[in-house]
Amino acid sequence: MVTDISLKDLSRKLEEFAKARDWEQYHSPRNLFLAMVGEVGELSEIFQWREEVAKGLPNWEESDKEHLGEELSDVLLYLIRLADMCGIDLGEAAMKKIVKNAIKYPPPTSPKAL
Amino acid sequence: MVTDISLKDLSRKLEEFAKARDWEQYHSPRNLFLAMVGEVGELSEIFQWREEVAKGLPNWEESDKEHLGEELSDVLLYLIRLADMCGIDLGEAAMKKIVKNAIKYPPPTSPKAL
Amino acid sequence: MVTDISLKDLSRKLEEFAKARDWEQYHSPRNLFLAMVGEVGELSEIFQWREEVAKGLPNWEESDKEHLGEELSDVLLYLIRLADMCGIDLGEAAMKKIVKNAIKYPPPTSPKAL
Amino acid sequence: MVTDISLKDLSRKLEEFAKARDWEQYHSPRNLFLAMVGEVGELSEIFQWREEVAKGLPNWEESDKEHLGEELSDVLLYLIRLADMCGIDLGEAAMKKIVKNAIKYPPPTSPKAL
Repeated sequence: MVTDISLKDLSRKLEEFAKARDWEQYHSPRNLFLAMVGEVGELSEIFQWREEVAKGLPNWEESDKEHLGEELSDVLLYLIRLADMCGIDLGEAAMKKIVKNAIKYPPPTSPKAL
Repeated sequence: MVTDISLKDLSRKLEEFAKARDWEQYHSPRNLFLAMVGEVGELSEIFQWREEVAKGLPNWEESDKEHLGEELSDVLLYLIRLADMCGIDLGEAAMKKIVKNAIKYPPPTSPKAL
Repeated sequence: MVTDISLKDLSRKLEEFAKARDWEQYHSPRNLFLAMVGEVGELSEIFQWREEVAKGLPNWEESDKEHLGEELSDVLLYLIRLADMCGIDLGEAAMKKIVKNAIKYPPPTSPKAL
Repeated sequence: MVTDISLKDLSRKLEEFAKARDWEQYHSPRNLFLAMVGEVGELSEIFQWREEVAKGLPNWEESDKEHLGEELSDVLLYLIRLADMCGIDLGEAAMKKIVKNAIKYPPPTSPKAL
């Protein structure tokens, strides 16, 4: 797939979705957070009886990967909606957090420099 | 802020970050999921003793909003990294999930049409 | 109900349950923790669209209270089983934690004493 | 340790604890649930970068086991307090859930019977 989805694209779609169904009334921050925790629980169930899972999910059924994609999406969509309802620009916050983490955990200096 | 961050932008930054620190070895799917649950817990702590929180967070201190933005970001960043380590295109999956939800919950027909 | 269930009673029942079904092989600490997170998610779903919930759950349907009791139990049972599989005496640890909390948060001295 | 702690023992201690500090006002069901999710997050952090953890935690430092016992306890204590504030008898609910699970998942018939 060529399209590169932005956080604001998803944010706009979620807003339209809620408006069209008159669901904005339910989208208080704590309600949305609890809904997100519910989805984190469903994501956990996918991993729960599997012992360690290898990167790239070799040997997983296609339908299990599809299911995983849906649960990851559910967490993402509630997270974006929660940020919006709190008036937080999630993309900007995430970029700032990456910079902050880079300062907190500086990369090791190149061994070549020694 | 004008920039509209995409999921793939964040994904690339996280990959570079992990590579530069030789942290890819720790980024197995279950490790990343557990790290995300840890961040969901920190997010929960922000909301825990507040009773209901109004949209837009009126009356919140600027520093509390900043903290909230960081915790939302931490959940997002682990979620993106988890999707990547599972070989899931999170943006594509999220778009598909929105379409699926729209079919599952059709908007009410306009009263004007009646 | 007169019976006062102990943590060890529940622990023993869970062990028998797992043994009788040959499920001990699945009960590694991380598997059990993830299963517990799944149940926390189901518990969250009960509270998610309700705005604030009053103590004692006035106006809740009897069937909703029953459902809540089941989800609270599911979290408890996985938590006990997780502690057991880690070799932790949960009752003893909980008593110690209460004492530790009491030292960390001393009760205010009575105003009458002043 | 000889003592076998009951859920009601812990429940009573938590009630006294909250009363002595005038904290009952904060113990609404959703507040307590969010506090519990915060503790689940701290528990997750203990397991997050460890790959699979063996039963009984061989090779863990004594201080790490102690820490684990505290985080397991924190989840337990908020869970018990949440059940109490919802008017749910957690011990009774847990016993009923075990019976229900036993019916849902009957143990295999003994090979001797064949």
